[in-house]
Amino acid sequence: MTTTTDGYEGDEALADRLSAIGVESDIAAVRALLAGIAGAAVADDAWMDLISPRLDTASKRQLAFLFRSVAAECHIELDIRPDPERLAKLRKELDKAGLDGFIVPRTDEHQGEFVAPRAERLRWLTGFSGSAGQAIVLRDKAAIFVDGRYTLQVRQQTDDTLFAPHHLTDSPPDDWIAENLSEGGRLGYDPWLHSQNAVEKYARAVEKAGAQLVAVEANPLDAVWENQPQAPLSPVVPHDLAYSGKPSSEKRHELAEKLAAEGVDAAILTLPDSIAWLLNVRGSDVKHTPLPLSFAILHKNGTVDWFADQRKLSPGLSEVLGNEVAVQPVSSFGDRLEALATAGAKVKADPASAAAYVFERLQGADIARGEDPCTLPKAIKNETEIAGTRTAHVRDGAALTRFLGWFAAAAPGGELTEIDVSDRLRAFRAESGALKDLSFPTISSAGPNGAVVHYNATAATNRKIGQNELYLVDSGAQYLDGTTDVTRTIAVGTPTAEMKDRFTRVLKGHIALATARFPEGTTGGQLDTLARAALWQEGLDFDHGTGHGVGSYLGVHEGPQRISKAGSGVALKPGMIVSNEPGYYKAGEYGIRIENLVVVRPCAALAGAERTIFEFETLTLAPIDLALVEVSLMTPAEIAWLNDYHARVRETVQDLLDDTERAWLAKATRAI
Amino acid sequence: MTTTTDGYEGDEALADRLSAIGVESDIAAVRALLAGIAGAAVADDAWMDLISPRLDTASKRQLAFLFRSVAAECHIELDIRPDPERLAKLRKELDKAGLDGFIVPRTDEHQGEFVAPRAERLRWLTGFSGSAGQAIVLRDKAAIFVDGRYTLQVRQQTDDTLFAPHHLTDSPPDDWIAENLSEGGRLGYDPWLHSQNAVEKYARAVEKAGAQLVAVEANPLDAVWENQPQAPLSPVVPHDLAYSGKPSSEKRHELAEKLAAEGVDAAILTLPDSIAWLLNVRGSDVKHTPLPLSFAILHKNGTVDWFADQRKLSPGLSEVLGNEVAVQPVSSFGDRLEALATAGAKVKADPASAAAYVFERLQGADIARGEDPCTLPKAIKNETEIAGTRTAHVRDGAALTRFLGWFAAAAPGGELTEIDVSDRLRAFRAESGALKDLSFPTISSAGPNGAVVHYNATAATNRKIGQNELYLVDSGAQYLDGTTDVTRTIAVGTPTAEMKDRFTRVLKGHIALATARFPEGTTGGQLDTLARAALWQEGLDFDHGTGHGVGSYLGVHEGPQRISKAGSGVALKPGMIVSNEPGYYKAGEYGIRIENLVVVRPCAALAGAERTIFEFETLTLAPIDLALVEVSLMTPAEIAWLNDYHARVRETVQDLLDDTERAWLAKATRAI
Repeated sequence: MTTTTDGYEGDEALADRLSAIGVESDIAAVRALLAGIAGAAVADDAWMDLISPRLDTASKRQLAFLFRSVAAECHIELDIRPDPERLAKLRKELDKAGLDGFIVPRTDEHQGEFVAPRAERLRWLTGFSGSAGQAIVLRDKAAIFVDGRYTLQVRQQTDDTLFAPHHLTDSPPDDWIAENLSEGGRLGYDPWLHSQNAVEKYARAVEKAGAQLVAVEANPLDAVWENQPQAPLSPVVPHDLAYSGKPSSEKRHELAEKLAAEGVDAAILTLPDSIAWLLNVRGSDVKHTPLPLSFAILHKNGTVDWFADQRKLSPGLSEVLGNEVAVQPVSSFGDRLEALATAGAKVKADPASAAAYVFERLQGADIARGEDPCTLPKAIKNETEIAGTRTAHVRDGAALTRFLGWFAAAAPGGELTEIDVSDRLRAFRAESGALKDLSFPTISSAGPNGAVVHYNATAATNRKIGQNELYLVDSGAQYLDGTTDVTRTIAVGTPTAEMKDRFTRVLKGHIALATARFPEGTTGGQLDTLARAALWQEGLDFDHGTGHGVGSYLGVHEGPQRISKAGSGVALKPGMIVSNEPGYYKAGEYGIRIENLVVVRPCAALAGAERTIFEFETLTLAPIDLALVEVSLMTPAEIAWLNDYHARVRETVQDLLDDTERAWLAKATRAI
Repeated sequence: MTTTTDGYEGDEALADRLSAIGVESDIAAVRALLAGIAGAAVADDAWMDLISPRLDTASKRQLAFLFRSVAAECHIELDIRPDPERLAKLRKELDKAGLDGFIVPRTDEHQGEFVAPRAERLRWLTGFSGSAGQAIVLRDKAAIFVDGRYTLQVRQQTDDTLFAPHHLTDSPPDDWIAENLSEGGRLGYDPWLHSQNAVEKYARAVEKAGAQLVAVEANPLDAVWENQPQAPLSPVVPHDLAYSGKPSSEKRHELAEKLAAEGVDAAILTLPDSIAWLLNVRGSDVKHTPLPLSFAILHKNGTVDWFADQRKLSPGLSEVLGNEVAVQPVSSFGDRLEALATAGAKVKADPASAAAYVFERLQGADIARGEDPCTLPKAIKNETEIAGTRTAHVRDGAALTRFLGWFAAAAPGGELTEIDVSDRLRAFRAESGALKDLSFPTISSAGPNGAVVHYNATAATNRKIGQNELYLVDSGAQYLDGTTDVTRTIAVGTPTAEMKDRFTRVLKGHIALATARFPEGTTGGQLDTLARAALWQEGLDFDHGTGHGVGSYLGVHEGPQRISKAGSGVALKPGMIVSNEPGYYKAGEYGIRIENLVVVRPCAALAGAERTIFEFETLTLAPIDLALVEVSLMTPAEIAWLNDYHARVRETVQDLLDDTERAWLAKATRAI
């Protein structure tokens, strides 16, 4: 603990400086806090407020030095080369614990899409960096299971002599367990890291194998992971009423009334975006989604027990939360669950998202299994959130338009790489001064890389933008007033007739969805076909959903609404934001996707309507490449939509552009 | 038993006549058989073969007299006026049996859409004649539960001081039981008349009420129903390979292999259309669907135990069935189920369609709950069935075309009633000489009656076809080579602009579905929206499914495929026949529906297709009223479809018409 970096004067000197300005000065505690900050996704120095809002310039400077030193020790940038030593160490640890195997998921305690470095156990063990997957380690063999997005990537990143790669649905863990786990064997799992549903599924597979599924008390992988990052400690800040549109107290009491009406005493919340929405707080514990990791119990009287590290709370937050929100140590969460069970309470918990640990500790309670009660009201944005999102989309649309104009001029030079381009796009967004984070890692893909639906350019795959190719960029931003997600496909040079045909069919699907009207009660599954019909007519299709829900300065992927073949059973309601993103992919050649976000709204002024009818308002504002539109395939109504949309883009964002950009936009949005 | 009608010489004389031609002459047995025939839906004298194929003219004449006499005693035409005496008698019987209540469903032992007169218990007790519903009779109150189609009708037909009418889903039996059944009460049900799923649902409701659900051994309603019709005994005849396209032995062995692969020893079949399909037999036990009521057990070696009244088998049928099909008395069905259970067999049974009785007697067996294994292969028609269906549609289309021409000339006279018109339509179909039955009661509805989706004209509602009204006719036929179902809406006089607008939007939906192409794996639920989008755009919709499966000389409604908002999860496969019937209904004014049957087929000759793509072939051939088409609302592609369809109708059916009819058809199908 004596490491310093250039300029750091040492712990004692820092303690003296802090003490001189009247600040608590236990430097060991400060170092622990900094390790947690290093384990989060903080982008600025706002964390210094967690030490004290009254720091002077000199102590801030010293703290910055110290932070760099602590972060360097934490090995946050994981070495993703497969390391057989790690597997060997884990097996030794399993042997000590009397286990014949162990499940290592990519998920954390909250089942979220983005996880903190501390939770990157799967990546640490196997080298695989995808956003979903799981490994099962037995005494003499191990396997890794990933979905269709990652079947190529897993072979590139992991050593398949250590981890046999399997397709999650074609060759599921259940079958592998049945074949490979010996009768009487003990397969361990960490009950914090799997949902109750996942554990019940494993339990059935293990039972079939005549073996035993065993919850561990302490994660054996964590025991052998040296320098494992600390749990994230990013500042939790209030999310202003100007953005959230509704006080937390109102949200809490509305939900509480519903719980009471259902005869439920308390609901367990383990999804951090639910809690962030409910308490009107934000954080930066993980990348791309501005939330603090925490747990909560909402009681039927509207009060909340919030299990969050006290050190994360920014100054003054407690006052904002008020006395109906009691902050508790995370370590007391389990005991509190047990207390509910002992009291015979009726408790709502979601087996699809809550950790098995929750159900373990609730044993004896009257458990009402059901969806997290925040999910639906969070998805239905209020007027303030919708207005904020509109503003965010104007800002984002201007940045994207500037980027597209720059790209049109620069790409023909032939020297730009995919990473150059995504860096430039980020810079355009940052220039607004309002960018908090990207809402997900940008997909910047040229030519054949565009056909890899979840492509992520790395040093190894980074490709120059070639001539007569398509370039596809799917990106989004987090702003205080809203979350964006947009995809544009651009022709560099001259597109082929086939490219134009495919692009135009994707566009026809996009327009069919954008202009759909539908009665109350209609689900996204019912609308999905509208986005595909023009492709189906030619025997073409795309293998991903047409639309996902999007949060308000929260997750870029949120439920319960979606637009997909599989349907979801959830009716679309006014205020829900969802993406409209049909595509077409030709393996080895090119990819096409056109994505705008839309918000559901009542269909106003429809004379003679006999039903309550909803429609979409398109939020995203950026030109669609006219060079790829085959006008002869479009109906007059489709052409009118495209011209109207382009006119709206032009009128809305042109004031945020310089003259050159404005001239380019006028051309890019000309009527056809 | 001494009643005779004019011309009947008496039992002894008949016995002598029969004996003289060498025919078994137990006249008591003959009378019992005739009672069963009276309880069926026989339309001709083919039943005489069941007595002997060697009857002479004189004995046939005497048998016809005797049949009329027996049928007259059977009170087959139910008196549907509510009769409080019947309810009083039932309550007395319940009291004797120690029951506090009893459930009276409309369903029979086979859960079919059409039931035999003997099974019309709900109608006998309450007067209600709808095709679905149930009554619950308690000591001091009773209720009847019907769905949205029948909320008006139930109030017209039943005495609501005896049976309080309830909406099946808004005010379900479960709630009523919870409120009205006393704690400790015993609610009886006949385990033959409810599916296992239905009984399990009742059991939960009764348990909540702290009462007891009790299976009766003998139905107490049957005990008090004097002159209850006998179980139907219509002749079971082979369904020729020229129509079925696949020998029963092949069907049985293919299914048996699947069962064996699933580790199932036997499958219980209780759906009569499944059995008719599997054994290639047909009958006329109920109206509109040409099937014999029976039960069967399909064993994993491809043999079948068929539980059917031996007296129903037409001469020579046993030889056609072969020695792998063992005909057994219906009374032995239960014991055979119990024997399977005792032998520890794994038995497949469908809790959604099989009577609770089946599950009762299977107790102790390893029951694999799952869909009737015939359902899916029956739905996928083979080439012979499809070819037969095409032929049936040409015949049916010609009859409908002749009818439409006649209607166009006759309706403006203003004297036709709905019943006149449907009688005339039946006559046109019968003139083909191939009509076996209508496939359902014709919906012949003028003006406001057209807005009643499941309208059935009765003496009380029969309406004259008025001027400047819409007339809607939904009808279908059973032919040996196929089952039809078609709806046309016709303008009498001058339609309003609104009528034309609505009709054209319905037509646009019909065309969108008719021309859809879709990848393998697509369900009807995914396509439903195509049929509604043009209505939704104006804030309109219709409250029924867009399409139902149709059998091949079997049920006009069959699963598992369907096209509806609710979806079905079943992918459409080549060979499935389904209706395409969007509509629009304006209560109190008019109804519009355009229905053709279509069959799923692979989409041939689609250059560059990257997926396996299916499309629909429209089977139904009859003009669509051009007077109702608002051409300005149609796209060029829609107009082309309508013109092509009309040209096909003209070319296909014109040879079956006389000159006047042909001239009318040419005009009715002119290109627009």
